[in-house]
Amino acid sequence: MRTIIALDSLKSNKDKITSLVERTCGLVAGYKLGWPNLIGTSPPKIVEAIKRPCPEKLLVVDLKLADIYYTMKTILDEFPDSIDAVIAHAFVGRRNALEELKHYLDMRDIRLVLVASMSHPGSKDVIDPCKDKILGTTRQIKPWGVVAPATRPENIRIMRRELGPGIKILSPGIGAQGAEPGDALRAGADYEIIGRMITTSPDPVQVLNKIIARHKSILNEY
Amino acid sequence: MRTIIALDSLKSNKDKITSLVERTCGLVAGYKLGWPNLIGTSPPKIVEAIKRPCPEKLLVVDLKLADIYYTMKTILDEFPDSIDAVIAHAFVGRRNALEELKHYLDMRDIRLVLVASMSHPGSKDVIDPCKDKILGTTRQIKPWGVVAPATRPENIRIMRRELGPGIKILSPGIGAQGAEPGDALRAGADYEIIGRMITTSPDPVQVLNKIIARHKSILNEY
Repeated sequence: MRTIIALDSLKSNKDKITSLVERTCGLVAGYKLGWPNLIGTSPPKIVEAIKRPCPEKLLVVDLKLADIYYTMKTILDEFPDSIDAVIAHAFVGRRNALEELKHYLDMRDIRLVLVASMSHPGSKDVIDPCKDKILGTTRQIKPWGVVAPATRPENIRIMRRELGPGIKILSPGIGAQGAEPGDALRAGADYEIIGRMITTSPDPVQVLNKIIARHKSILNEY
Repeated sequence: MRTIIALDSLKSNKDKITSLVERTCGLVAGYKLGWPNLIGTSPPKIVEAIKRPCPEKLLVVDLKLADIYYTMKTILDEFPDSIDAVIAHAFVGRRNALEELKHYLDMRDIRLVLVASMSHPGSKDVIDPCKDKILGTTRQIKPWGVVAPATRPENIRIMRRELGPGIKILSPGIGAQGAEPGDALRAGADYEIIGRMITTSPDPVQVLNKIIARHKSILNEY
């Protein structure tokens, strides 16, 4: 199972989140929470809405952290240990930022995922030209995974080549942002992060089954 | 008045926030809210805790937004129109990110502040080497202001020279992070963002009065 469902569009509606998680738990690799799910509620409540019906699957908290360590830690202190991974931006660099964050998350047995590339056209302005510096920082921090977009599969191939087979690659950008399910897996990603295509569908299970069939056929090509 | 108080250390404690704001409203340029203040509560409640006792001063919401436009908009839709400015990262670039964000904020009459440089040593890994690209993006987006650190005043001078006199420069990094009050003003900043030095003091008004005296003596040098 290679799909991580991005829950953003369900906002902080606990009932909708739990209902979707109950129906899809057996069909996914995990779930991704973002700030839109957390506003107006508390992190433990939303985490519980996912972890109670589906405790074994990966829960990635996508805060796109991009601040000094003090602020990142202050935010993460509010989250329970049951979360599995946290997303931060590689570009903030190491000292007084990612180095301390990695250590803090290691102590709590939570995995770090770094944004090494993004899915939107604006990435071409700064992120793409600074790819080497971002990759250098990523290599030094040794996170569990990186985020790289399905919309530009060449970036996934670069990550895989530069960061080696051990790192997990999580790919957003599928559906609403233009890539097709399977595009990222074919380029070497481990997980495809899919949001609105599933969360706004009247039949999310049917959508997921189609995605799974597509994933299977692509993985069989190799 | 050139001080913007960063409220992060008060977390989402509305009473503590309101009490500090009531005591300091006449002595500051404004206040800065961050994610640590917003977790476990709702944006309108925290905004009201500041805007009711002190409606005329600048309220800067420091979300360090660093995502695609869809996610940034989903987050900001939860904030009332009474906020005055929002901080986002310049490095996410223009298309499907800052261009749309600027337009959205213009429609709501909220000012955009871009992070163009940061205060911690990790900035040397990616942000500083990519300064030209970040400045280029900033110039094209034409935000109301930028964030540049008091800990490295040469960066403030670069911003002022490259972005012109019209742009506001907001400077964090004073106190807990090592710079002294006045360091950023001397280098050309418009506002100094000061947090724990004020918020964790037993006598925040006394601390502020000392900061104001320092600011006055520096502004009189020119």
